[in-house]
Amino acid sequence: MARVSQEHLDARRRQILDGAARAFARDGFHGTSMQDVLKEVGLSAGAVYRYFSGKEDLIAAIAGEAVGGVRQAFEQASRDSPPPTPDVLIGRVVRSLFGDGTDRAGGLDRRAYAGLIVQVWSETLRSERLSATLGEAYAGLRVAWAELVGAYRAAGVLTADVPDEHVARTLIAVAQGYIAQLAMFGDVGPEVLESGLRGLMSMDLQKIS
Amino acid sequence: MARVSQEHLDARRRQILDGAARAFARDGFHGTSMQDVLKEVGLSAGAVYRYFSGKEDLIAAIAGEAVGGVRQAFEQASRDSPPPTPDVLIGRVVRSLFGDGTDRAGGLDRRAYAGLIVQVWSETLRSERLSATLGEAYAGLRVAWAELVGAYRAAGVLTADVPDEHVARTLIAVAQGYIAQLAMFGDVGPEVLESGLRGLMSMDLQKIS
Repeated sequence: MARVSQEHLDARRRQILDGAARAFARDGFHGTSMQDVLKEVGLSAGAVYRYFSGKEDLIAAIAGEAVGGVRQAFEQASRDSPPPTPDVLIGRVVRSLFGDGTDRAGGLDRRAYAGLIVQVWSETLRSERLSATLGEAYAGLRVAWAELVGAYRAAGVLTADVPDEHVARTLIAVAQGYIAQLAMFGDVGPEVLESGLRGLMSMDLQKIS
Repeated sequence: MARVSQEHLDARRRQILDGAARAFARDGFHGTSMQDVLKEVGLSAGAVYRYFSGKEDLIAAIAGEAVGGVRQAFEQASRDSPPPTPDVLIGRVVRSLFGDGTDRAGGLDRRAYAGLIVQVWSETLRSERLSATLGEAYAGLRVAWAELVGAYRAAGVLTADVPDEHVARTLIAVAQGYIAQLAMFGDVGPEVLESGLRGLMSMDLQKIS
C-alpha cells in the first residue's frame, strides 16, 4: 500500500469539508444528500467515506471549526494588556470571523458562512452529538469571557454589582445575534456592534433612576 | 351551507397552528410531514387545507406570530415615560415571550419555543416568502427601537456619538442571542441579560483609553 503523507491527508480533508460547506450553504443540510456532497467535492464515495462517515459527521466537523474560530478570535483579541473594551473585542472577533479576506470554509462569503452557522444551531436542537460539541465549546467560551469581565472589574472599569458570567453571556449573545442578522438580512457590519456597544457603555443609569 | 361564526373559524385556525407548532418543535420542520401535522392537530386534511395551503404556509404564520409577539412586547415595555433603560426593556420583552405562564403557540415550553424560532431563522435562508416577512418585521422593529434610543439620547442618558440605529440593532442582537442560547442550552433566564446589560452600562471607557 502506498504511503500517504500527512499533508496529503489534511488537504483531502480540507477539500471535503470545503465542498460540503458550499453544498450545505447553498441547499441547506436537509436539501443536500451525500451524493450532492460527493459531486461538489469531486471525489469518489470511497475517498470521502474514508474521512467522514456521513452528513452528520460533516456537520459536526464544520460546527467544530466554526466554534474553534470564535475561540481563537477571542483569544487573539483578548491577549492585550489591559484587555480591549467589549466594543473593541467584539469588533475584532466578528471581523476575524466575517471580515473580508478571512479564510472561511469553502471560500464562503460572510453572509453564507453566517447562514451555515444558523443551520448548525438549528441542527443542534435535534442532534445529541452536535449539542454536546457546542455545549462544551460554549461553556469554555463563557469561562474565558467571564475572566475578561473579571479583569474589567479589577481595573475599576466595570462597577455594577452583577455576576461576571451574566455580562459574558450577554456579550456572547451580542455576537450570536449579529450572526443571525447577518445570515437573514446580510446588511450588518462589525461597526454596528462596535458603536452599538459604545452607545450602551455611555449610558448613565444615575441620570434616570 | 351552514354559517360558521368567526369565533369558530379563529378557534380552528388556532387549533391548527398549535398542533403544527408542537409537531415542528418536536421533530423539526424537515422531519414533519403535513400528514404528521394532521395527526397532531386531530383534523381532516380538508379541514386543515381550508386554512393553510401547506407546511410553508404554516411556518410563515408561526413566524408572523413570533415576530408580532416581539413587537407587542416591545410596545408594551416602551410605553412608560421616561422609557425604561435597556436592561429593564430587554428583560420585559424576554419575559413576555419566554416567561412562565406566557401563552405560547402549542403550549410549548420556553426552550421548545426558542427552538422553533431558531428553526424559523434557518428556514428564512431558503424561503423568499419567510425572508420578506421577517425582513419587513425586523425593519419595523429596528425603527421603533432606534426611536427609543433617540429618547435616551434626548434625556441625556446616552452620550456616545454613535448612530441610534446601531444601538438598536445591538439590543436586538442581544435578544436574538438569548433566543439562540435558550434554544441550544436551555439554561438562561431573563436576569442574565438584565444584569449583563447593567454591567455593560456601568463600564467607564474613560478609565481605560
